[in-house]
Amino acid sequence: MKKINTVAIIGVGLIGGAFGMALRKQKLAGRVIGIGRNEKKLKNAVKLGALTEYSLDYWILGEADLVFLATPVVHIEEMLTKIGPYLKAGALVTDGGSTKENIVSAANKYLPLYTYFVGSHPIAGSEKSGVQFSEAGLFNGAVCAVTPDKLTNKIALSKIRNLWKKLGANVVTLSPAEHDKILAATSHLPHFVAAAMEVSVISKNKNLLSLIGKGFKDTTRIAASSPEVWAEIALANKKNVCKSMKEFIRQTIKLEKAIKRGRSKDIVMILKEAKVKREQL
Amino acid sequence: MKKINTVAIIGVGLIGGAFGMALRKQKLAGRVIGIGRNEKKLKNAVKLGALTEYSLDYWILGEADLVFLATPVVHIEEMLTKIGPYLKAGALVTDGGSTKENIVSAANKYLPLYTYFVGSHPIAGSEKSGVQFSEAGLFNGAVCAVTPDKLTNKIALSKIRNLWKKLGANVVTLSPAEHDKILAATSHLPHFVAAAMEVSVISKNKNLLSLIGKGFKDTTRIAASSPEVWAEIALANKKNVCKSMKEFIRQTIKLEKAIKRGRSKDIVMILKEAKVKREQL
Repeated sequence: MKKINTVAIIGVGLIGGAFGMALRKQKLAGRVIGIGRNEKKLKNAVKLGALTEYSLDYWILGEADLVFLATPVVHIEEMLTKIGPYLKAGALVTDGGSTKENIVSAANKYLPLYTYFVGSHPIAGSEKSGVQFSEAGLFNGAVCAVTPDKLTNKIALSKIRNLWKKLGANVVTLSPAEHDKILAATSHLPHFVAAAMEVSVISKNKNLLSLIGKGFKDTTRIAASSPEVWAEIALANKKNVCKSMKEFIRQTIKLEKAIKRGRSKDIVMILKEAKVKREQL
Repeated sequence: MKKINTVAIIGVGLIGGAFGMALRKQKLAGRVIGIGRNEKKLKNAVKLGALTEYSLDYWILGEADLVFLATPVVHIEEMLTKIGPYLKAGALVTDGGSTKENIVSAANKYLPLYTYFVGSHPIAGSEKSGVQFSEAGLFNGAVCAVTPDKLTNKIALSKIRNLWKKLGANVVTLSPAEHDKILAATSHLPHFVAAAMEVSVISKNKNLLSLIGKGFKDTTRIAASSPEVWAEIALANKKNVCKSMKEFIRQTIKLEKAIKRGRSKDIVMILKEAKVKREQL
């Protein structure tokens, strides 16, 4: 892969910071410029080795061969309506957002025809946020979804796929619609379930707090994620998220009814199906 | 603590095996006899160091100063109806079952007055089962609930509490009823939620399977637990489990409705409550 002269990262948090660190570690980019509003955070990102420099001014985008949008999802949409005039001809643009239909559609609508957008979603986030948790190996072994649609340029697609592979990710290519449908179930649903469980269970009972085991802790780890980020994701992928939640609620009610009625065989059947499916992962 | 001459363990699986290993490692017991029906498994437990000997015959219980019941919960109840005639006067009996009201009540009903029962629940299980996963350090740092009721002998209670402390556990003492109410929420609910999520989400879609991230895996790890064991637990603690599941379903529906209606502030409020509670753990 040819070295990229200048990369611009908008939103230097956990994912944006790790992207910069990984590019630099692998010597895949010359300049890595962070763009944002919080100078202190950007300075810190330079210090941590995620960036070679930073700017508070979007004009610098005109120098970028590759632009990576790594802010929360709603902000990525907003960015896409604004950055068009700054981009240079031939610029490659991608993102790290957790929803893809809304983002790819905004890119198609607002970016100039002489730039190339390819949606990506590296599945490497955690309940932590901020560049202080970034590391160059974050994408190593992680899955990265790349989501072309019929307007996506084939060469740009191939470049973005190769880039993620170079950063160590296992690339899965699928449409924005399929991505959002699947992620609603495999990623968004578990977050909202973990949150509902925390809210329904935890009280100030001292004995309760001391009787929390590993099972509960694992199941609710992601309930510590950023409320604002996940509210945005829920709304950006509303239709699919609600569908997944409804199906999950249906299965939970079914199991609760089997328990209430003392139907041992029905309970075992549901738990067995779950065990078989879990062991396939 | 005085060394116990003879300990009998009925049910030498993950918990029973670890109990034997820990007693032996700390030199807290002389003979550690495993009792069960599967000779091959018992031989293996001796080989792994969990036992000093084994027996297929319940008459050997007459030699035990301490009896530990570590079979699945329904089987513990059944054992309690049967072992009485074999026990020697002054024998101390405890268990490792995940539910306590049913077990303590069976002990009160069926054990002879010249023996002493104290219910315990070491919260150290996992989705794994079998003595091959046991280790002497399993209870180290784990919480162990000890559940006396008004019939419990004070000296026996103190001996059982001390024993678990010696094995490295943090002992929490509470009534069988409170134990079952709390565990329904902190342990049983997460198992059934994880199972319902597996069943509602996982399909044969190849892209879906490759887009499973760490969040989903953590949230559903315990869905790989034994279906039979957990069906028994559900039924042994039916009233509390159903109550916890209903409250959880109510919170999940509330969140789903807030998402469906696009109420960003309501979503953030629920997720924030969850985050604050999660971070208290």
